[in-house]
Amino acid sequence: MILDELAIPIVQAPLAGGPSTPALAAAVSGAGGLGFVAAGYRTPAALAQDIAATRALTRRPFGVNVFAPVQGPADPEAVERYAAALEPEARQAGVALGRPRFDDDGFAEKLALLRADPVAVVSFTFGCPSSHAIAALTAAGSEVWVTVTDVAEARQAAAAGATALVVQGSEAGGHRGSFVDRDGSTEYSVLALLQVIGAHVRLPLVAAGGLSTGGAVAAVLAAGAAAAQLGTAFMRCPEAGTAPVHRAVLASSRPTALTRVFTGRLARGVVNRLMQTYESPAPSAYPEVHHLTAPLRAYGRQSGEADLVNLWAGQTHELAAEMPAAQVVSQLHQELLAALDRAQTRLAGARRRHALDRPDRSRAS
Amino acid sequence: MILDELAIPIVQAPLAGGPSTPALAAAVSGAGGLGFVAAGYRTPAALAQDIAATRALTRRPFGVNVFAPVQGPADPEAVERYAAALEPEARQAGVALGRPRFDDDGFAEKLALLRADPVAVVSFTFGCPSSHAIAALTAAGSEVWVTVTDVAEARQAAAAGATALVVQGSEAGGHRGSFVDRDGSTEYSVLALLQVIGAHVRLPLVAAGGLSTGGAVAAVLAAGAAAAQLGTAFMRCPEAGTAPVHRAVLASSRPTALTRVFTGRLARGVVNRLMQTYESPAPSAYPEVHHLTAPLRAYGRQSGEADLVNLWAGQTHELAAEMPAAQVVSQLHQELLAALDRAQTRLAGARRRHALDRPDRSRAS
Repeated sequence: MILDELAIPIVQAPLAGGPSTPALAAAVSGAGGLGFVAAGYRTPAALAQDIAATRALTRRPFGVNVFAPVQGPADPEAVERYAAALEPEARQAGVALGRPRFDDDGFAEKLALLRADPVAVVSFTFGCPSSHAIAALTAAGSEVWVTVTDVAEARQAAAAGATALVVQGSEAGGHRGSFVDRDGSTEYSVLALLQVIGAHVRLPLVAAGGLSTGGAVAAVLAAGAAAAQLGTAFMRCPEAGTAPVHRAVLASSRPTALTRVFTGRLARGVVNRLMQTYESPAPSAYPEVHHLTAPLRAYGRQSGEADLVNLWAGQTHELAAEMPAAQVVSQLHQELLAALDRAQTRLAGARRRHALDRPDRSRAS
Repeated sequence: MILDELAIPIVQAPLAGGPSTPALAAAVSGAGGLGFVAAGYRTPAALAQDIAATRALTRRPFGVNVFAPVQGPADPEAVERYAAALEPEARQAGVALGRPRFDDDGFAEKLALLRADPVAVVSFTFGCPSSHAIAALTAAGSEVWVTVTDVAEARQAAAAGATALVVQGSEAGGHRGSFVDRDGSTEYSVLALLQVIGAHVRLPLVAAGGLSTGGAVAAVLAAGAAAAQLGTAFMRCPEAGTAPVHRAVLASSRPTALTRVFTGRLARGVVNRLMQTYESPAPSAYPEVHHLTAPLRAYGRQSGEADLVNLWAGQTHELAAEMPAAQVVSQLHQELLAALDRAQTRLAGARRRHALDRPDRSRAS
């Protein structure tokens, strides 16, 4: 199993939609972690190119993340009403809103490509593929990871034959990986998920959500995770394709929130004017709203208008460092070893004092 | 500092409103952790009795938690509208709703009592006392802890002279300890808070929120916390005053959510009919709504109607064990030592493999 073979138990989150690059995935894998190529929003042909480019940069294993198909088309009228609400923004920016079409992001073609030319790990977000699809990938030599956000999803993924689970806490930047886009009455944190899923499902867990320091990586390992998956922590690396306007915001301490404004599916980003203004009309309609707002977001990235951009970021984004990805991995590794040592030393000290403490105990009795 | 003197870095959350008892606080302190007496909702005289009763049961240090005064009276009309909405529930139960009065829970009297007869730690929830009040308690020999839920609150508490901070993540059961009752755009998890507050404030941090296993305690220690504070994990202990109907629900895996239905202040509890029905009319009006719903909740506890009770619970409540508090502490301690050892061993294995891995690296270059 790949998780047992990593030199450093750090996995790069896929970061679809811009930040993901072959250079980033290769740098993380080359440093002893596990890099990921994002299939999301790419054509099958572009995905094949990305895989080839990553292989040209590293012989180490890496993964590919695929968006599982979502429930089906949304109510077109809700999308139209939302488009009308956004129209003044588009006019102001001088762009036309995109056509709000439904698609499955080339799911079948991407799976066919990955079966024909396997990578070490295929992970899924937004749902659990069929046990048949998982078995086919496994037979081709890939491990299959499924992103989950609660115990029910974890059980479903385990029953379908997943090799491991990516346990995504509410702290995570970008889209919630939940199987259904819903307002979570319980938005479990990553530490809560490791506990409750760990009690019910016997699969290796990869912990994701708001992990920016080696101490936090050490934390999820201590809580039983086999590895930590970090996204925002890599978004300021020179290898990442993160837009400059997005990089600048990541370095600030501005708050984040969950929003459907940009894509019609809950995702965490740094709060900006579009989120503050259009949350209430924004419907649950993915990927229709993603296509609708794409030109506006592209304009914002090009013109540097942060208020028009989906500024995906985890809760601890201000701690993401601007340095090469290999250095991020090695610094996190050093920090995590030191963090575990410190915790051990502290506890050993407490034990020693406890042993010396007996006189007080007898006095108390 | 008390946190350096604990045999086991486990702190019992105060659990005001029923579960807190002198027996529980004494059992946790006696087991090598730090127990807490809840001053909240108690008269100053009852608090004095609780402190005396705890001292009669243990010579070990323990703490007292005090509710800081809240902003001031809420809009009476909003409270009246909410009372009217709840009226059918009261009629059905055959009780009269309580008078929705504003009070400060005897703040000045309780501080006077604690200055005159100090305990090891005085902690605060719902706000930060003045630097003058903190200095007076410190001069009397107490350490002062302040509960915080974001970086701004942490900075304010540090500037006011707090000895340590209780860092309460969004996973936590019961009331949010935030200085102002607000809908959190960013509801930071405990692991996120440890990272961002740890980067800005140089005070010992006590981590709280959804910690039910030794692995989770190990996690927050690895992330830099000086100790872990657990509430729900102690609510099924025989020493706790938790109502039977509440105990039964804790043992289930029913989901939790944040609600203002019961007290007019955001708190996390297991979702029940009252929460599902009255969230939208429930105003931000603490403690008025607390007093308003008190008879309804008391009726629910006595009659066993879980749908009328504030079923405070952290996100991992299903993992709370039914066993004596000393056994909870000692089991968590064993688990946390094992969890840190396992994480160390796993990393040492990865390092060894990394060292053996060189041939592949040279082949790749």
